[in-house]
Amino acid sequence: MALSWKGARSQVRITEMRVTPVAMADPPLRNSVGVHQPVALRVVVQLATDEGLTGLGEAYGGSARVASLEAARKCVEGKDPFQLFAIRREVPDPGTFSPIEVACLDLAGQAMGRPVCDLLGGRVRDEIPFSGYLFYKEERHPEYDGVDDWGKVLSPEAMVGEARRFIREYGFEVLKLKGGVLPPDEEVETLRQMRESLGPDVGLRIDPNGIWTVDTSIRVAEAIAPLGIEYYEDPTIGMDAMAEVRRAIDMPLATNMCVTSFAHLPHAVSKRPVDVILVDHHVWGGLRECVRLAQFCADFGISTSMHSNSHYGISLAAMVHLAAAMPELTYACDTHYPWVVEDIVQGEPFTFRDGKLPVPTAPGLGVALDEEKFASAAERYRRYGITDRDDAGEMRKRVPDWDPVVPRW
Amino acid sequence: MALSWKGARSQVRITEMRVTPVAMADPPLRNSVGVHQPVALRVVVQLATDEGLTGLGEAYGGSARVASLEAARKCVEGKDPFQLFAIRREVPDPGTFSPIEVACLDLAGQAMGRPVCDLLGGRVRDEIPFSGYLFYKEERHPEYDGVDDWGKVLSPEAMVGEARRFIREYGFEVLKLKGGVLPPDEEVETLRQMRESLGPDVGLRIDPNGIWTVDTSIRVAEAIAPLGIEYYEDPTIGMDAMAEVRRAIDMPLATNMCVTSFAHLPHAVSKRPVDVILVDHHVWGGLRECVRLAQFCADFGISTSMHSNSHYGISLAAMVHLAAAMPELTYACDTHYPWVVEDIVQGEPFTFRDGKLPVPTAPGLGVALDEEKFASAAERYRRYGITDRDDAGEMRKRVPDWDPVVPRW
Repeated sequence: MALSWKGARSQVRITEMRVTPVAMADPPLRNSVGVHQPVALRVVVQLATDEGLTGLGEAYGGSARVASLEAARKCVEGKDPFQLFAIRREVPDPGTFSPIEVACLDLAGQAMGRPVCDLLGGRVRDEIPFSGYLFYKEERHPEYDGVDDWGKVLSPEAMVGEARRFIREYGFEVLKLKGGVLPPDEEVETLRQMRESLGPDVGLRIDPNGIWTVDTSIRVAEAIAPLGIEYYEDPTIGMDAMAEVRRAIDMPLATNMCVTSFAHLPHAVSKRPVDVILVDHHVWGGLRECVRLAQFCADFGISTSMHSNSHYGISLAAMVHLAAAMPELTYACDTHYPWVVEDIVQGEPFTFRDGKLPVPTAPGLGVALDEEKFASAAERYRRYGITDRDDAGEMRKRVPDWDPVVPRW
Repeated sequence: MALSWKGARSQVRITEMRVTPVAMADPPLRNSVGVHQPVALRVVVQLATDEGLTGLGEAYGGSARVASLEAARKCVEGKDPFQLFAIRREVPDPGTFSPIEVACLDLAGQAMGRPVCDLLGGRVRDEIPFSGYLFYKEERHPEYDGVDDWGKVLSPEAMVGEARRFIREYGFEVLKLKGGVLPPDEEVETLRQMRESLGPDVGLRIDPNGIWTVDTSIRVAEAIAPLGIEYYEDPTIGMDAMAEVRRAIDMPLATNMCVTSFAHLPHAVSKRPVDVILVDHHVWGGLRECVRLAQFCADFGISTSMHSNSHYGISLAAMVHLAAAMPELTYACDTHYPWVVEDIVQGEPFTFRDGKLPVPTAPGLGVALDEEKFASAAERYRRYGITDRDDAGEMRKRVPDWDPVVPRW
């Protein structure tokens, strides 16, 4: 359909693409599907150039992603990191392209002496507000590679304790509760006790990952509305069900589940399932795509926030640069980072103050691998032998007849 | 609504923004409104930095644009050219921001030793196909600053001659007829004779600039459909009328009139007035916005082409870089460039071969001002004293009771 086009001319050449699956120690956090395994899987992409630079990218792990990244190597090696459209043409899968794009932008930024946000349109803020990501959790993993002093959190009271510690240690002004774990009324009670204990100024969100029916979603919305909720994320599954909930309630409805690609946007604007879309550069095909997604959302009267999954500092740096270059960003971003026991990047580049992180000013992403910790994370991946995430299987070790049925309530 | 954000930190500083209105000699080309004046107005923006670079941008002229650019100077001087979102925030008007953005990208490209297309995502093609832009025309301007050896073109036969010369001199494989000048049946006859004379392989388009009623638009579409028309541009005015035409015909309908800003997109996807949107970086707020517009169009099943108005080589360079970095571009781009008598950029950087222009490989836009010709164009602006375009007024010098009524037929 489009005019024919030729591949990129190379000016800087990517000489090597390295793909390294790694595993991070991850506490037994609960969600609607089950419980986190003792390790969360990530993949690190390293792109080296003939000018001696190395660019970094990080993606969700799992055997399919590792295989698709391995397969992409021949499309990336030999290319110029500025030729993003040309690389994307050969690596069209958004989840596979994303860490490659981030690594290319890291290279381009280093080559130019510019932070990555300056390649996206420039920084519109110097620090990025994050939300504290609260999880119900089991007491401990039977075998575990890290420290876990959070204890068991499976009641409203325990969650209030977790919330207070999050605020004390990181200064978050917004908290997001991963719901869909306890029966809905207990999660309503959790939010009620959080509001009572934390006062009126803390922003509250809840995300049960689509585990509720439309009726339950509406009933819960009515119950929590008086508490003052920033947004209500994915109570139920699918655009039609979400749109039905949205028509019935008077609270911003958000998603990172029913609108997750540009192909969904025509339906998203006709069915109107949500008020808020959570961008995620790992899912949407990189930082540049998320910038335009946020612009699209603004054009169509949709607000934006940022989604997170368990991640290391490479992803966090990319998220911070993205949030710095998203004028339309409406809400504090999600991050799992406080749950990370040991990062694989050098130093301690990310220290939350008042729930915020400063935007790096160094060229590129502004992070470099700690080779020792990186090797340890790669060794952990091999040692555990877990190649695909299976929260339901992990749950069955605790509850043998566990069935991650959707909807559950 | 969105999170608060701070302005840019400067790293490179724009030390001076110069705004220079210029006038190009322009033949008496006809259109639905009247006839081109002896000069077409443009504005040149020059941004100088503390590192000694100069970036160039070009915009549509006219007193309002000159005034808005003058007013923008205080928002641009002192800024870092990479901080495009921050500058845009202070200069939100798309037509005013556009030449500033292009000049910033020219600066950034020069600073990095990269052509502008590499800052937009990289080149996906090394040469850009253009369409030959055919105009009915009057024989000559009474007073004129250039050469005009095209003669009078106000009949189908004369237009066939113009078309043949366009193909002979530039090699265009696609021709666009600016319609809305002769009665519709004579324009249909013009296309019929063009098809007969030029053979089946030349692409044909017609654009009467909205001068027809819905009924006439449909009747003309039926008459020209057997000739094989690439697309049918703006036969009538407004999204609703265009959508009505579109439902009645079986030919791609295009616009640069009823969808001209991101604010129009929600209606454009609900009313579906067109199959093709003509991007124009002067109108849509710069090159980056046009890249995302083309991506949006692809997401929503809309094709893309590129609009043109009378312009110099700075705009042409920007158009070429944009077309190089628009994977989604579906059709050959429009350009008025063959009608330019004397450019203000150095050398002869743009020579059409087979209707195509090569994408510059030099850093930045790849063009520099010819100071003598630039001074002459600025002098011409002062000498003619025309500060706003008035094709209808110009027509009244020839036809005193001329009334640019819409619709006319």
